[in-house]
Amino acid sequence: MQSLATPPENTLVKALLTDYYQITMAYAYWRSKKHNSRASFDLFFRKSPFQGEFTIFCGLEDSLRFLAHFGFSDEDIQYLKTVMGDTTDPGFFEYLRHVDASDVTVHAIPEGSVVFPKVPLIRVEGPLAVVQLIETTLLTLVNFASLVATNAARFRLAAGPKARMLEFGLRRAQGPDGGLTASKYCYIGGFDATSNVMAGKLHDIPIAGTHAHSFVSSFRGMEEIPDRSLAYADKSDTCKDFGQLVKEKLSQLQSAWIDSPAAVHLETNLDELGAFTAYAIAFPSKFLALVDTYDTLRSGVPNFIAVALALCDLGYAPHGIRLDSGDLAYQSIESRKYISWTAERFKCEKLNSALIVASNDINEDTLNSLAQHGHRIDSFGVGTHLVTCQAQPALGAVYKIVELDGNPCMKLSADVEKVTIPGKKDGYRLHGRDGAPICDVLLREGEKAPVVGEAFLCRHPFQEQKRAHVRPQKVTPLYKTYWDKGEAACELPTIHELKQRVTEQVAELRQDHKRRLNPTPYKVSVSSDLYTYIHELWLQHAPIGELS
Amino acid sequence: MQSLATPPENTLVKALLTDYYQITMAYAYWRSKKHNSRASFDLFFRKSPFQGEFTIFCGLEDSLRFLAHFGFSDEDIQYLKTVMGDTTDPGFFEYLRHVDASDVTVHAIPEGSVVFPKVPLIRVEGPLAVVQLIETTLLTLVNFASLVATNAARFRLAAGPKARMLEFGLRRAQGPDGGLTASKYCYIGGFDATSNVMAGKLHDIPIAGTHAHSFVSSFRGMEEIPDRSLAYADKSDTCKDFGQLVKEKLSQLQSAWIDSPAAVHLETNLDELGAFTAYAIAFPSKFLALVDTYDTLRSGVPNFIAVALALCDLGYAPHGIRLDSGDLAYQSIESRKYISWTAERFKCEKLNSALIVASNDINEDTLNSLAQHGHRIDSFGVGTHLVTCQAQPALGAVYKIVELDGNPCMKLSADVEKVTIPGKKDGYRLHGRDGAPICDVLLREGEKAPVVGEAFLCRHPFQEQKRAHVRPQKVTPLYKTYWDKGEAACELPTIHELKQRVTEQVAELRQDHKRRLNPTPYKVSVSSDLYTYIHELWLQHAPIGELS
Repeated sequence: MQSLATPPENTLVKALLTDYYQITMAYAYWRSKKHNSRASFDLFFRKSPFQGEFTIFCGLEDSLRFLAHFGFSDEDIQYLKTVMGDTTDPGFFEYLRHVDASDVTVHAIPEGSVVFPKVPLIRVEGPLAVVQLIETTLLTLVNFASLVATNAARFRLAAGPKARMLEFGLRRAQGPDGGLTASKYCYIGGFDATSNVMAGKLHDIPIAGTHAHSFVSSFRGMEEIPDRSLAYADKSDTCKDFGQLVKEKLSQLQSAWIDSPAAVHLETNLDELGAFTAYAIAFPSKFLALVDTYDTLRSGVPNFIAVALALCDLGYAPHGIRLDSGDLAYQSIESRKYISWTAERFKCEKLNSALIVASNDINEDTLNSLAQHGHRIDSFGVGTHLVTCQAQPALGAVYKIVELDGNPCMKLSADVEKVTIPGKKDGYRLHGRDGAPICDVLLREGEKAPVVGEAFLCRHPFQEQKRAHVRPQKVTPLYKTYWDKGEAACELPTIHELKQRVTEQVAELRQDHKRRLNPTPYKVSVSSDLYTYIHELWLQHAPIGELS
Repeated sequence: MQSLATPPENTLVKALLTDYYQITMAYAYWRSKKHNSRASFDLFFRKSPFQGEFTIFCGLEDSLRFLAHFGFSDEDIQYLKTVMGDTTDPGFFEYLRHVDASDVTVHAIPEGSVVFPKVPLIRVEGPLAVVQLIETTLLTLVNFASLVATNAARFRLAAGPKARMLEFGLRRAQGPDGGLTASKYCYIGGFDATSNVMAGKLHDIPIAGTHAHSFVSSFRGMEEIPDRSLAYADKSDTCKDFGQLVKEKLSQLQSAWIDSPAAVHLETNLDELGAFTAYAIAFPSKFLALVDTYDTLRSGVPNFIAVALALCDLGYAPHGIRLDSGDLAYQSIESRKYISWTAERFKCEKLNSALIVASNDINEDTLNSLAQHGHRIDSFGVGTHLVTCQAQPALGAVYKIVELDGNPCMKLSADVEKVTIPGKKDGYRLHGRDGAPICDVLLREGEKAPVVGEAFLCRHPFQEQKRAHVRPQKVTPLYKTYWDKGEAACELPTIHELKQRVTEQVAELRQDHKRRLNPTPYKVSVSSDLYTYIHELWLQHAPIGELS
C-alpha cells in the first residue's frame, strides 16, 4: 500500500499550480459568504481519445497526494496579495492561510480502471471555495496521466501481448515532467520498461538502453581499446584479447558468408566492429548492438554476429540487435535469417536467443502495418508518438458542479454533449454471461443498486427512445471512498499492482470495443429515476426560445 | 542579468533525468579509456514545426542552469549500482561521483532568436563521456521550450500585434511541468499573460482570470449576497445596496431594449445577474463577466451591461465580457453593437472601454477565420491547442557528434536530410539592404568571417549547383560563449528581455518566411571551404554500393 504522507514528488504540484480564476472566484464566494456552501463536483470526460471507445483512468494517487498536502504558504499568500491588490479584503487572506482539504470527501473509480465518457471518474464534495480551488490541479494530474496510459494500452494491443515494449520518449516529451509522467503512466498502461533513469529510480520501473549512433561513430577500430581482456562467464578463465577472438570469428564468417542467405562477399565496417567489441567488453551479458550506423545488413548485423559468436565461446548469451531506420519488417526478417543460419552453421544454439529490437518513429499504424508484413521483431522502442500522444495530445476532462447545498446544478448547452448530469450519483458496471462489461449505469444517490440476475432498465441519458433491460451476471460498484474529511480512506495499490489492474481490465473488455477501426461504443446509461430527474430539471431551466 | 547560482526550479531536472543508454555508453567509454577524449556535439533540428519556416530558440538558460548543477548524488550512484549490477567495475562509480561540467564549453545562439533547420543552436565541447551524459536533458529542455514558444509566436502573428493574448492551458497540459513550461515560453513567444498562478509567481509573468460557469451556476439570485454595499471608486461615499442599483439599471435597460439592435423584449436570467453582481462587488475595478452560461446575447450581455452601468455610476470602468462558446465572430460583433448602443443611449462613455475576450478551442486557423469575418474581439484566451502544440506536439531536435580528438565525425544516411555537417563550425547571419536576414551561413572554425559589402559565396550544403554570392549589409555572428569550463561566460537576459528579443527577431524576418500558407524557406548555407570539407569526408566514408 502507498502512503500519502510524502508530498508530491514534483515540488511544483502545489496549491498555486492553478488558474487565477479559481482564486478570484474563491474571493467572490468568500465576499458573498458562500465559500462554505456544500458543493459536489464531478470530474469526467466527454469522448475517449485516439478515436477509440475506452480510456484508462490514471492520476488518482497524484490527486490524493496533492489534496493531502493542499494549502497556501505565507509566501503564496504574499504573492497573491501583490496580484489582487489593496482593494481585496485582508480577511480573505487570513481565510486562505487556513484552507486545507480536511472537510473534503473524494469518491472515485479505482485508478487503472477502464472508463467511459460521461461517467464521473472522481466525485468531490466539500466547501464550495475549497473544491473550486482544487479544480485545475486535479484536471492537470488526471488529464495527461489518463491520456498517456490509454495511449500505452493501445500500443500494447497493437503490438500483442508477447512483444517487449520499451518507452524511449524523454527527449521529445513536453518538458522534464511531461517526460517523467509519460514514463510512469506508459509503464502502468502496458509498457515493460523505460529509458528514463529518473523514472526508474523514483517509481521502481525497469530501465533499458544500450548505445547510440554517436557511440559507434566515436570508435576508430578496436585498436583503440587499451584493455581487451574479458573473463569467461563462469569466471573460470580470462580471454586475454577478446578483440582478437572477435576478429577470428569475423574471418570465419567472411569465408562462410557467400553460403549465407545474404549470398555476397562480406566486408563490414571495422570502426563499427571496434565499437561493438568495446561495448561487449563492458556489458558481456547484456550485449545489444545498434546495427544501422553504416549499413544494417551488410555491416551491422554480421559485425554483431561476429562479436556474439566470440561471446558465446566465453559462455555468454548475446542479447540482440536494435534496428533504427529503414524497412523494419524486411530488416527484421533478413536479420533473423542471418542469425539462424549462423547459429546452425557455427553450431551455436545460444545465438538464436538474440532478440530483435526496433525503434524509429513507431506509432499504432506502424505496429499494425509491421504485423501485416510478418515482421520478426521481439521488442519495440517507442518515443515521440507515445509520450506526446501525437495522435491526440490532450484529453478534455472537465470538472463540473452538480449540486450545491442539496440543490442540483445543471449546465445547459445547445450542444447536448455538453449538458451535465445533475446531482450526486452512484454508479455500477453491469457484466454479462462471459464476464465482460455490458454497460455502466448511473443512479441517483441512495437508489437501490442493480441486482445480479434481475432485469434493470438502463436508459440513454438524453434520448428518450433508447432504453434496454439488462439482467447482469455480475454487478460492480464503480466508486470507492478514497479521502474522507482529511483522511485517506482506502488502500492505494503499488505501481505494479496498477499495471496488473490495467492488463486485467483491458483483457476483460469485449474485443469490438477495443478494435482500432470503428470500435463499438460502450453504453453508458442512467436509471429511470435519474432519467426523469434530469429531464424535469432541464425543462425547468431551459429558456423557451423566441423565433423572429 | 539572471544568475545560474540557483538550481533548476524543477527539482527533477537532474543528471538522472536522462536515457539509460547515456550511462551505459559512459561506462563503455570509461572501460575503453575514451571517456576523456575531447568531443564536440551540435544540437540542431531538421525542420521547423507547424509547416512553418522559422522557429524560436528557447531553453538555453534552463540548459545552462542544469549544467551548472550537473552531477550525480550518492543516492543516484547507489541506484545505478543496483541497476548495472556486480559485473560493473567499481572504479566507474568512483569516476561518476566526480563528474561535473567544469571541463565543458557551450557556444550557443542567444535564446529568443529566430532560428532555422540544420544550424546548430547549441555547440557543446568537453570530455566525451560528460558531453554524452547531458544529451537527453538538453534535448528535453530545448525541444518543448522552443516548440511552444514558436507556437505562441505563430498565434501572435495570426492575432495581430494589438490583441491581448492570454494563455489558459494548464488543465490540458502534458503534466504539471508541461503546463508551467508552456506558460513561461508562451509569454516569451508573444503572449501577454497566463492563467497559471505558479508561473506568475515563479517567473514574474502577469496573470489573468475571472470566473467560470460554475460560479454563475452556483448563485440563486442576488438575495444570496448578504452584504451588497460597495464603496465609490474615489472612496467619497458608499452605495448601501449595489444590488438594488443593478436592478434599477436592468429595469431601465428593459424599457429601452426594444429600441436596441437586439429589438426584442428583454428577459435575462436573474441567477446570472446575482452572480455578476457578487463578482462586481468583489472586483469593482476588474469586472469581467463570462456571459454564455445561459444565453450570451439574450441574457449574459444585457446582464453585464446592467451591472456595468451601475459600476459606472460609482465611478468604476467595467473591464469587459468573455465569450466561451458559439460563433465568436458574430457574438463579438453583436455584443459590441449592444455595448455601443447602451453607452450612447445612457450617456455612459466609460462603457465603451469594455473589452471583449474570447476563448473556446482557439487555434491558428480559428484566428485567421475570425479575422476574415470581421470580429470585434480585443483579447483571446487560448488553452489546449497552444500549450500541447496540438498541430505538432514535438520538435525533433537532435544532438550529434561532429568532432572527436580533432577528427571530424559525420553520420551518413540514405536520407540526405539526416546527414550531419561535420567538424566545429562558426555561423553568421547575413542581412540585406532593408535589415532583414537573407541567409545563415556556416563556416569551418577559424575561417574568415563574411564582411559587410563584400561578396560571399554561399553554397547549399548538399546540392552542388545551388550557390549564390551574397553582399551583406550587416553581418551578425550567430554564436556566443555561454559556459566556459565551469563558469558562466555571458550575461543572461531576464524573461522580459527575452520576450522583447522574440518580438524584434520575428518583426525583422521577411513577411514571406512568416506567412501561414506556403512560406518561403529561409536559406541555410555553408562556405566553399566547408562545402568541400563535407563532400571529401562523405566520399571517404560512404561505402560503394553493390548492385545485384
